[in-house]
Amino acid sequence: MDFSFTEEQLAFRETARQFSEKALAPFAAEWDAKSVFPKAVIREAGELGFCSLYCDEEHGGMGLSRLDAALIFEQLSQGCTSTTAFITIHNMATWMLTRFGNDATRARWAQALMSGEKLASYCLTEPGAGSDAASLATTAKRDGDEYVLNGAKAFISGAGDTDVLVLMARTGGAGAGGISCFAVPADTPGISYGRNEDKMGWKSQPTRAVILEDARIPADCLIGEEGQGFRIAMAGLDGGRINIASCSLGAAQAALKQAQQYVQERKQFGQAIADFQTVQFTLADMATELVAAQQMVRLAAWKLDHNHSDKSMLCAMAKRLATDLCFNVCNQALQLHGGYGYIREYPLERYLRDARVHQILEGTNEIMRVIVARNVLKDLSFL
Amino acid sequence: MDFSFTEEQLAFRETARQFSEKALAPFAAEWDAKSVFPKAVIREAGELGFCSLYCDEEHGGMGLSRLDAALIFEQLSQGCTSTTAFITIHNMATWMLTRFGNDATRARWAQALMSGEKLASYCLTEPGAGSDAASLATTAKRDGDEYVLNGAKAFISGAGDTDVLVLMARTGGAGAGGISCFAVPADTPGISYGRNEDKMGWKSQPTRAVILEDARIPADCLIGEEGQGFRIAMAGLDGGRINIASCSLGAAQAALKQAQQYVQERKQFGQAIADFQTVQFTLADMATELVAAQQMVRLAAWKLDHNHSDKSMLCAMAKRLATDLCFNVCNQALQLHGGYGYIREYPLERYLRDARVHQILEGTNEIMRVIVARNVLKDLSFL
Amino acid sequence: MDFSFTEEQLAFRETARQFSEKALAPFAAEWDAKSVFPKAVIREAGELGFCSLYCDEEHGGMGLSRLDAALIFEQLSQGCTSTTAFITIHNMATWMLTRFGNDATRARWAQALMSGEKLASYCLTEPGAGSDAASLATTAKRDGDEYVLNGAKAFISGAGDTDVLVLMARTGGAGAGGISCFAVPADTPGISYGRNEDKMGWKSQPTRAVILEDARIPADCLIGEEGQGFRIAMAGLDGGRINIASCSLGAAQAALKQAQQYVQERKQFGQAIADFQTVQFTLADMATELVAAQQMVRLAAWKLDHNHSDKSMLCAMAKRLATDLCFNVCNQALQLHGGYGYIREYPLERYLRDARVHQILEGTNEIMRVIVARNVLKDLSFL
Amino acid sequence: MDFSFTEEQLAFRETARQFSEKALAPFAAEWDAKSVFPKAVIREAGELGFCSLYCDEEHGGMGLSRLDAALIFEQLSQGCTSTTAFITIHNMATWMLTRFGNDATRARWAQALMSGEKLASYCLTEPGAGSDAASLATTAKRDGDEYVLNGAKAFISGAGDTDVLVLMARTGGAGAGGISCFAVPADTPGISYGRNEDKMGWKSQPTRAVILEDARIPADCLIGEEGQGFRIAMAGLDGGRINIASCSLGAAQAALKQAQQYVQERKQFGQAIADFQTVQFTLADMATELVAAQQMVRLAAWKLDHNHSDKSMLCAMAKRLATDLCFNVCNQALQLHGGYGYIREYPLERYLRDARVHQILEGTNEIMRVIVARNVLKDLSFL
Repeated sequence: MDFSFTEEQLAFRETARQFSEKALAPFAAEWDAKSVFPKAVIREAGELGFCSLYCDEEHGGMGLSRLDAALIFEQLSQGCTSTTAFITIHNMATWMLTRFGNDATRARWAQALMSGEKLASYCLTEPGAGSDAASLATTAKRDGDEYVLNGAKAFISGAGDTDVLVLMARTGGAGAGGISCFAVPADTPGISYGRNEDKMGWKSQPTRAVILEDARIPADCLIGEEGQGFRIAMAGLDGGRINIASCSLGAAQAALKQAQQYVQERKQFGQAIADFQTVQFTLADMATELVAAQQMVRLAAWKLDHNHSDKSMLCAMAKRLATDLCFNVCNQALQLHGGYGYIREYPLERYLRDARVHQILEGTNEIMRVIVARNVLKDLSFL
Repeated sequence: MDFSFTEEQLAFRETARQFSEKALAPFAAEWDAKSVFPKAVIREAGELGFCSLYCDEEHGGMGLSRLDAALIFEQLSQGCTSTTAFITIHNMATWMLTRFGNDATRARWAQALMSGEKLASYCLTEPGAGSDAASLATTAKRDGDEYVLNGAKAFISGAGDTDVLVLMARTGGAGAGGISCFAVPADTPGISYGRNEDKMGWKSQPTRAVILEDARIPADCLIGEEGQGFRIAMAGLDGGRINIASCSLGAAQAALKQAQQYVQERKQFGQAIADFQTVQFTLADMATELVAAQQMVRLAAWKLDHNHSDKSMLCAMAKRLATDLCFNVCNQALQLHGGYGYIREYPLERYLRDARVHQILEGTNEIMRVIVARNVLKDLSFL
Repeated sequence: MDFSFTEEQLAFRETARQFSEKALAPFAAEWDAKSVFPKAVIREAGELGFCSLYCDEEHGGMGLSRLDAALIFEQLSQGCTSTTAFITIHNMATWMLTRFGNDATRARWAQALMSGEKLASYCLTEPGAGSDAASLATTAKRDGDEYVLNGAKAFISGAGDTDVLVLMARTGGAGAGGISCFAVPADTPGISYGRNEDKMGWKSQPTRAVILEDARIPADCLIGEEGQGFRIAMAGLDGGRINIASCSLGAAQAALKQAQQYVQERKQFGQAIADFQTVQFTLADMATELVAAQQMVRLAAWKLDHNHSDKSMLCAMAKRLATDLCFNVCNQALQLHGGYGYIREYPLERYLRDARVHQILEGTNEIMRVIVARNVLKDLSFL
Repeated sequence: MDFSFTEEQLAFRETARQFSEKALAPFAAEWDAKSVFPKAVIREAGELGFCSLYCDEEHGGMGLSRLDAALIFEQLSQGCTSTTAFITIHNMATWMLTRFGNDATRARWAQALMSGEKLASYCLTEPGAGSDAASLATTAKRDGDEYVLNGAKAFISGAGDTDVLVLMARTGGAGAGGISCFAVPADTPGISYGRNEDKMGWKSQPTRAVILEDARIPADCLIGEEGQGFRIAMAGLDGGRINIASCSLGAAQAALKQAQQYVQERKQFGQAIADFQTVQFTLADMATELVAAQQMVRLAAWKLDHNHSDKSMLCAMAKRLATDLCFNVCNQALQLHGGYGYIREYPLERYLRDARVHQILEGTNEIMRVIVARNVLKDLSFL
């Protein structure tokens, strides 16, 4: 066991930290207030490699480990949680496309996605298939050299502003085994997009429904084999859960830093509120929970990197724990700011709004518990 | 002990429920989205007596008990928590003005405030005096038949849109004993208002700073005697805490009702999610905590009505417990809705945003604990 | 609504408090240490009416309300939680026997049970039927003028030291409808008792298995009609849940009182630890939770007294909330005592051990949630 | 970063696991019930090296890292938490004596302590100096070639049954700087012992007061220099906190394993209770919290091994988090067992009783928060 960072990791983190501070943090409040999707900035992130962090080098990716990526996302998220969360989804979709896609697909998309020039959406959820993703109803019917897509996807990050949809649709019978994965050009005729959902947070990234009506795509858009779609989707999500957990770590870290400063500046009853023991204990618990969450995410990322048999359970544990604890950290940081925590002049309420959705997506925290429980009942050898 | 409602209470509640359903609920989302302060609707509420609920009948008020008022606010808040919260503050300020003010003050303001024709703001908090309210720095210097006001108030609900400021300022030395209370016409020359604060929630009521620069008011604007201001402010807050706690009860109740329906409609894995035991247990705990919070608020209101010696402690307990538990209820209701809980098409995230500030204002929940602890250390005879 | 006590209630409480202080508190530690079942003291309690609190006056009981009884049990439990808990079970069983039993049964047992001269056990749970009580396997076969009992009961409070077993056994088919209730003389041939279970707490009352092997009882021992047993058992438990919740209130109250004194006496870092803000906040939250729990128990008792349609739900809510919160209060009081909380010279660890089982019995807190959820899904009109 | 175990660590763990299963687990219930201090078994542990795990090899210790030791203690504690906790204290005291003691002290004690032939107690706490350890009042006055000890120590693990007391006493002025550390022969004339405290748990190790009345020891019993005692005591405690946290991990792990089996065997309502979703979620959260606690302890141990500047903060974080979470795990495991969790036939209630004290000793969890907060306010670079 070794808890130290490599020189390389320290360098990545530092690059990410600087980018976060300069290119994200100063603009996050405005992007939030005005629902700006900062595509140019994401492209800048791409230039630094942040759009293909764990894609294979042979496909043009950075070839970093999931652990490396988690460390980077944690830094980026401190500057803008919402934008970073989109970047992580783009990374996930890009990884799926380049890892499982065929040469034609890679040739078409890989370079542009990895550079951040083009963006990808991950399309699994449907209005009637959220936690129960395997029941999805969107169909892809083979018709000669094409697939014809029909159905609807819901809550799709980036949809309407992205270039390719990594989309799960049913090519076979009911259940997980009938699902296939496709790289669908976003501008395919027959595809339309719903309105940008007005959300509680994550406002710097659009969320739209995707409606597919006889949308025809070339058959070679298939990623992997027919019937492998659910497995590919889930493989993406193991990493996606680490990513989103890392975004929670970033939000909580920004919140804690903000609170740590504020309580030393804010005076009440003739002293800094940092002198009150209850404020101190609150900070102590926030920091402790944050470190615990960090460790859990790093352990899960490492398990994924090493393809351990319990990797999916660990990713679920990490996602559940980190997103819950970090929401609490954000919430307590808000409380420590009193009224100032509630107004948008300060970033606290934004941290809370952005972090809140992490408990819901990439598998709700309830589904995480289902995954963990299934493993725990079978085998406790991970202890 | 008797936990039943009187016929009269049932009638009030029903009137409030109907008003809430018709005049508030259908518009709450829009008021939130567009930051509309619905003054006309507040005036309608005034016509039903909701702007002077616990003001004395002899002064033109409804003369209801605090318990009656709490029951009514709980109903109203289900329709629009933010607007109801403002109405409760208006009630508090109006009560202070009519209860402790002189005849001239009552003659000038009472009727218009009670009818909701004019509105009142409560001005205690300052940028440097939040939890430590007794350290406030705004001054009122007697100059002949006038007082000259200088200073600044922060986070004032309604400010800029209200007609009278029930304002605490220092007429004497340091500490609570040097503070006096005034009924300040909102349009007094020398008074200016900050921008409408962009808040996380409570968006249907404006919040502004009040800047006082040599603002001159007639000496008979003094409420009570010089030096009684802090006591008057605190007397107002005992009720204010019950009011705000009642608004949390309303938000949580609306959230629970919404969730109870949703889980029976929403299907996943081939069944209503209400069939999952963890969903059931979550609902059970939400309902239990809500009932516990209700009882605590009602007990505190009753104690205030009967002027029990432990009334302030009970009000603090009720405010702390109800605002904490109800925030959790709102947050869990959001979670039960999954992605739908996070978008503004559903009211869940608004309930959460509105309820969040109740843990901060009318005395933070930390100050509530200070008040409770002081009593607990002295005397446990309330048990 | 009226939260005041009647003169009569104040008098009952005072009598109970005095008895608790004189007859229970001084001996509780010893009864715990030596597993003494203080039957003589229970008889003294009976002389004060504490063994038949809510039995009908016409049958020789005190005829008090459930609310009255709850107030009394809360006082008694402060002196010895374990002994009081047994007294509450005795009250429950005695009420079942006298309320639903026939004249012969009442003639045989009522006077002796109500005076505390003889004691009753409640026999529902079986080794294989805990939460799923309706699946019980003990049989009562009619044979002429007798019933022949076979089976085994587990975790029976008082068993081996009591005189009558209010026992549920199957006279008919599977499920709740096949169960009947009997008043079984404890010394009936064919009945034997297991060893006194060595428990974590509740050590002043024995807990044993009851083994029934062709135990013959007169047919008129039947309580109510054949097939009504489960309903009678559940009717008993509504009150039993309030009783046990009241015992938790007593334990928590004793713990809070102890802690409130200790923190003002104990000095560290040159001051009473009561001067530390975190200690104060802990006490404030303990007190607040205790009051909330009290109110919930009283509300439920009142609902039971008035036979409200939601009485069973309220009893379940109160039992769940009060036993959970009060365990926490006991646990925090222990923590405030540091090392002294962990040794038996102080009562804190005993409060915790005794209160712990209340989360398990009279229906686990999980079963309470099942009951509450069932109602919440149907109807929220209780709000 | 590397989360894998070395071959060596796996071997240690396996040895410890086997010893735990064979030499501790089968007897733990009896040692608990009869308050047996199993010195012979501790000596067996010593033969395997478990009494000098992180003592330097040059002094005859095993020379393992703190991380190695933590892994071993976690295994041992699964068999008997209370006995393992004593072994950890013995390790800590032995490390202090051999690391900071002079050659004479080492010559006298090292070999016997490391083999487990003789045992050591750690004597810091006094009746009036618990959390405020630096205020200790026991004095050591130099008198020629001797020190004369006067005062009293409280809650000393092993006292009365151990051979050497690693004892902090005041040689100088007030405060931490006036304290020195001594290796005091336990049978020194003038030393007497209080009665074995009757505790909630930790019953397989005696806890006694140590009374010192003109107890004379040779001057070369001084460990380190005069005035260094507090620093030595705290250096011991950094490791002590990891040790005790590891004991909590062991208790929780044993509890989780027990619960995981039980819920699959126990049937209610016609199915294994493991089939109930709420049971599954409970297990999932228990496992997740346990893994989080494990990681935190391992991180802290690694920081201590590498002498990081934030090592003391991390040790405090780990001790706080692990002992709190693991108590909860034990408590939930008990609840999952229903009535069976409450009786001594099952080990659940013992796990809870043993784990409870870990939140109190080696610095209460409140003192842990003080330590963490102090660092958090200064510097967040550990994030």
